[in-house]
Amino acid sequence: MSRTGFSHLDSSGNARMVDVSSKEVTRRVAEASCRVRLSPSTVESLSDLPKGDALVVARLAGIQAAKRVGDLIPLAHPLNLDHVEVEVTPDDLGVAIRSRIVVTGRTGAEMEALTAGSVAALALYDMVKAVERDASITELRLEQKSGGRSGDYRRRDS
Amino acid sequence: MSRTGFSHLDSSGNARMVDVSSKEVTRRVAEASCRVRLSPSTVESLSDLPKGDALVVARLAGIQAAKRVGDLIPLAHPLNLDHVEVEVTPDDLGVAIRSRIVVTGRTGAEMEALTAGSVAALALYDMVKAVERDASITELRLEQKSGGRSGDYRRRDS
Amino acid sequence: MSRTGFSHLDSSGNARMVDVSSKEVTRRVAEASCRVRLSPSTVESLSDLPKGDALVVARLAGIQAAKRVGDLIPLAHPLNLDHVEVEVTPDDLGVAIRSRIVVTGRTGAEMEALTAGSVAALALYDMVKAVERDASITELRLEQKSGGRSGDYRRRDS
Amino acid sequence: MSRTGFSHLDSSGNARMVDVSSKEVTRRVAEASCRVRLSPSTVESLSDLPKGDALVVARLAGIQAAKRVGDLIPLAHPLNLDHVEVEVTPDDLGVAIRSRIVVTGRTGAEMEALTAGSVAALALYDMVKAVERDASITELRLEQKSGGRSGDYRRRDS
Amino acid sequence: MSRTGFSHLDSSGNARMVDVSSKEVTRRVAEASCRVRLSPSTVESLSDLPKGDALVVARLAGIQAAKRVGDLIPLAHPLNLDHVEVEVTPDDLGVAIRSRIVVTGRTGAEMEALTAGSVAALALYDMVKAVERDASITELRLEQKSGGRSGDYRRRDS
Amino acid sequence: MSRTGFSHLDSSGNARMVDVSSKEVTRRVAEASCRVRLSPSTVESLSDLPKGDALVVARLAGIQAAKRVGDLIPLAHPLNLDHVEVEVTPDDLGVAIRSRIVVTGRTGAEMEALTAGSVAALALYDMVKAVERDASITELRLEQKSGGRSGDYRRRDS
Repeated sequence: MSRTGFSHLDSSGNARMVDVSSKEVTRRVAEASCRVRLSPSTVESLSDLPKGDALVVARLAGIQAAKRVGDLIPLAHPLNLDHVEVEVTPDDLGVAIRSRIVVTGRTGAEMEALTAGSVAALALYDMVKAVERDASITELRLEQKSGGRSGDYRRRDS
Repeated sequence: MSRTGFSHLDSSGNARMVDVSSKEVTRRVAEASCRVRLSPSTVESLSDLPKGDALVVARLAGIQAAKRVGDLIPLAHPLNLDHVEVEVTPDDLGVAIRSRIVVTGRTGAEMEALTAGSVAALALYDMVKAVERDASITELRLEQKSGGRSGDYRRRDS
Repeated sequence: MSRTGFSHLDSSGNARMVDVSSKEVTRRVAEASCRVRLSPSTVESLSDLPKGDALVVARLAGIQAAKRVGDLIPLAHPLNLDHVEVEVTPDDLGVAIRSRIVVTGRTGAEMEALTAGSVAALALYDMVKAVERDASITELRLEQKSGGRSGDYRRRDS
Repeated sequence: MSRTGFSHLDSSGNARMVDVSSKEVTRRVAEASCRVRLSPSTVESLSDLPKGDALVVARLAGIQAAKRVGDLIPLAHPLNLDHVEVEVTPDDLGVAIRSRIVVTGRTGAEMEALTAGSVAALALYDMVKAVERDASITELRLEQKSGGRSGDYRRRDS
Repeated sequence: MSRTGFSHLDSSGNARMVDVSSKEVTRRVAEASCRVRLSPSTVESLSDLPKGDALVVARLAGIQAAKRVGDLIPLAHPLNLDHVEVEVTPDDLGVAIRSRIVVTGRTGAEMEALTAGSVAALALYDMVKAVERDASITELRLEQKSGGRSGDYRRRDS
Repeated sequence: MSRTGFSHLDSSGNARMVDVSSKEVTRRVAEASCRVRLSPSTVESLSDLPKGDALVVARLAGIQAAKRVGDLIPLAHPLNLDHVEVEVTPDDLGVAIRSRIVVTGRTGAEMEALTAGSVAALALYDMVKAVERDASITELRLEQKSGGRSGDYRRRDS
């Protein structure tokens, strides 16, 4: 597709949105995960909240961001997503986030899964930043993908 | 501002966009950083590229995302940014990203700095994903902020 | 699809964008209507206008909003609409609005029809608000829909 | 401002975004309300839900829509909102929605309050539409506004 | 501001959004113009239309695009516009478009004026393209600007 | 499609988004071009830049704008683009821009090609405006299109 192996660059290294019109329309699934690391006292405050709004805000932000990948990532193809699910689970070290995307299309949904996780984490950070500024977002990565010409993928250390 | 310490939640735990109308308009600066971890062979491929487009795409994606925080983060206040700078620097372990935001307003720009870093990293991932799927985005964090009522902040281990 | 009958909630009550990838792609039509209630003097002023711009603004606002439902409604699936028509008809009591959407896809276009009507009405309100602040928007409802697994629907009192 | 009294139309009836550059920057508040009418059985199903996600989705949709009024309403001025609050309260007849906006700017926030209420109601409709298609959205109206040259307003029958 | 004279590039040639936080907030005006060239038969068809919708669509598209410059032009500062006016005037050679922007801010509104003209012209093209594909859009240029540190400007041949 | 020949107007001259649901899904290609005219000294400054960022910014702005046509052009159908390429080539008279779009859908991509060219040119103007305000954008036109019921088109003087 490109001399360099980088699909978004042509043979001279110019950025373009690669032509996928000859790819098959198939059902594609992608999953990603990341973590928001919080101090023990923030974890405790979060679990003391009277309602679950903080987690719902993060979940919805992730779902909505998945729908805007074509706008956010310059060379990403716009996709009409069939399914978006974002789990936001507090634990002892902070919050674990996991996203899952299903799409019927000509390109995979890795960027949608990663962006959903990333923006869910940012929205969670936004909720807790008045309480703790040392929070960090780490280990954002693709967990698995299936469908499409390039074969299935599953992260080894998952 | 809230019984819980979480500024985006009212005293019953309901999410709302907090009232900043009584806050002072001041010049506020925020800086964030993160890393895209890549395998040695991807690092090498990246440095072999004939042109710098891959890095410019990441930089621009970060700058543009900073301008869309009001859209992406449900309870964030929309801000008219005065300055956005995103550095994307390849090194032996992958790519280091650093963002800096200046705004004249009633709320700080932490979310803008973090979102710029995060989306620059996602755009970089999008460029290399045909070459390596094991890339991960890590250590996204606020480095420092100044301006505003809550005082200046500088990350201890920066 | 869900224990509760609410398709956007999973069995634990968590919001997610429901998986439609196994639904059939069919031609789907949806129609909605609403009213902007105006005082007799505003109705008269509106009919005295030298040109029809006020009504065109409302019509276009409705058409454009239909295209942004995926952005506005958190759990709505993005759809590439085939047809959008919005009628804005002044009468003795104010303005009657009717919208019609056609889409070829895996989910219906109820939300698009309702959003088109709703935003057309808001844009009309925006045009007249300097003249009358007591205007109200009422009776926004689905008139009919067809296509899709759940069967056709026609409002009884239409 | 205009021969016709309609501020968005010039003296020939052409639509334009009116010049507010000579207006004073003041703190402005606007409140709006509307209702989603539901059948008794839907009201009951809603109250049986294990979690409050359905109401949070509506509340967040309203908050986010308030931030996008400049995009949705063709002739509205873009505003950087200081505060957005949306209450979504189930009762015997359905769901009552109330929105409140604070802004420091040259124009009022009526459209933001009305749009927040309207889109919160649409998002709520989207949550219940698999259960009931006869739901309707009614009585969307400005409750009160203050700040700005045109004087304070309070709806008489509120 | 930059070694090169190009304000959007730093001294190494890297693109960034330039820091305007030390610039004064002033009232700034910008005007731009362009033309859509049409064949005589298209000009005639356009003037035979029963209503003025085609011209209103172009005018509104221009106004709305002016509000989205921060989203469209990667290094442009987001601005809250005070006034947008777009004139769309058919004549013997096609359609003349003129836009005028007023903003109170730290940067000028040239890009808003040019973008308004450009998108109004594109929307007009979209209206006539079923009738004529040879239409072209030409002579898009800044007519004048005032306000701001860099001094007033008026195009010599205007 | 319409009494008037203008596909976006119904038989009464009302603007609507035309119904394409009965059109065939085919592979469609469109190409457009335009020019940014610059003074010789600006051309020289541009070629003296240490890096190619100015041209990449224009290219990316064009690619991203192509993805937003459904948002920018009021009556355009939203399309999921398969391929977007924008060339930005400096020459003696300024900068030549050429765009190419591929889409699999029910309507052509003329507007996407023209918008990509137009916004790439505006972004380039934005880069050079601190150096030269007399720059103009000219000769934006469709070069060719293929696919679709209305037959192929190639500009005669291309």
